[in-house]
Amino acid sequence: MTYCLAATVDQGLLFASDSRTNAGVDQISTFSKMHRFLGDGQRIFVLLSAGNLATTQAVVTRLNRDIEKDAEHSLAAVEHLSEAAEYVGGISREEQGKHSGKGEDGFNPDASFILGGEISGRPPSIFQIYPEGNFIRASAHTPFLQIGESKYGKPILDRIITADMALEDAARCAIVSMDSTMRSNVTVGPPIEVMIYHAGTQEPGRHIVLGEDDDYLRTLRVAWQESLRNAFNELPKLPRLPASVRLVDGQS
Amino acid sequence: MTYCLAATVDQGLLFASDSRTNAGVDQISTFSKMHRFLGDGQRIFVLLSAGNLATTQAVVTRLNRDIEKDAEHSLAAVEHLSEAAEYVGGISREEQGKHSGKGEDGFNPDASFILGGEISGRPPSIFQIYPEGNFIRASAHTPFLQIGESKYGKPILDRIITADMALEDAARCAIVSMDSTMRSNVTVGPPIEVMIYHAGTQEPGRHIVLGEDDDYLRTLRVAWQESLRNAFNELPKLPRLPASVRLVDGQS
Repeated sequence: MTYCLAATVDQGLLFASDSRTNAGVDQISTFSKMHRFLGDGQRIFVLLSAGNLATTQAVVTRLNRDIEKDAEHSLAAVEHLSEAAEYVGGISREEQGKHSGKGEDGFNPDASFILGGEISGRPPSIFQIYPEGNFIRASAHTPFLQIGESKYGKPILDRIITADMALEDAARCAIVSMDSTMRSNVTVGPPIEVMIYHAGTQEPGRHIVLGEDDDYLRTLRVAWQESLRNAFNELPKLPRLPASVRLVDGQS
Repeated sequence: MTYCLAATVDQGLLFASDSRTNAGVDQISTFSKMHRFLGDGQRIFVLLSAGNLATTQAVVTRLNRDIEKDAEHSLAAVEHLSEAAEYVGGISREEQGKHSGKGEDGFNPDASFILGGEISGRPPSIFQIYPEGNFIRASAHTPFLQIGESKYGKPILDRIITADMALEDAARCAIVSMDSTMRSNVTVGPPIEVMIYHAGTQEPGRHIVLGEDDDYLRTLRVAWQESLRNAFNELPKLPRLPASVRLVDGQS
């Protein structure tokens, strides 16, 4: 499994991904799921990937090849971010199509992506690209997108992420969301990669890699656990009600 | 969808359930998913249900009928809690079997349950009963069980629930977990039912029903949101690292 997320805030874009891949519980490896393209001051793209590793690697390879050989369609050639999302979705469908229906029961070549970036002169944005190749764009009302094992880490994003928050704070929130997910699901694992992209630069932002034993990650984890416990302990107590006399449904 | 959970702590058992059922987004109703049986000072059972509503209602009806008619197998007759779980699992399979394969594509008669309770002279316990009828028992290491839409509300349980915590605190934690889930998924909805069962009584415990506009639920919700924001704001800032020079994988 995988957990990746991206957020768009006024200051820029935030990307985060775990690095665990597994084909069965006894075949666990570490692969980066964060892929950067260009970043030359004119345009930059960051792609987060989830799903079949062979598919996602094939897609990344083709995106790079198309840039290298100056293809008609490539991340270097598209004029809009939505065009980039459509291009990536199309390549993803092609790569999945090469293998679908060929494997054993349970084989699934599906892959999902989050594509974000900025083309000079246009606002930055993030897109979620489904296995079918179609895609959605994040908005001011929904400033974050998730792929993979997204549920455990969603409540904290729902509560904290807003468009006007500082990019650094969004990064911290993403790390907390990632850490909560790792705690609840063993198929999501370190290192955590974080990319902090400042709008208007079109250059690679701060790229942080936090391993399992990273000092900051450990400090954050302990502080968050402590804070949550304290917050919980300070919650108002249940009201002193008499035992309810209402019969529970299902009682005849 | 549904979200139900139960916890076993030293002081007793805790049950919580939402009340929303839906068959498509335009057919949403409110049904209790918490069912109490007996509670006569000798034995008590609480059943939480998720899945196909026709199946779960049929199961509850049969459990009540078997008690009424003094059947050879019934919740009134079983000697052990595990025997009760096996009996409920068997009835669930039978009821599902009556309708499986008959519906349109996407029809699914599956149901899952959490069964908890106490029989005089034996320790209280909680079981999760799968659609296949098999079941697992909670343990000191895993003191809580969840059915339905369980992921959003799991991180807080993972962090807070321990066997030695007060039953009242477990109830508060269950309400927070339920509230986080309602916030992230519209198919889980109020009222929230909570049952606090004190070990050794074999009598109905405190039964609390919290509607959408319940004062306590609203206070708790605001307090938790506030506390989480404060806790988040106090987390250690990201270390001041230079922009990483490591190229992201996927770059050639």
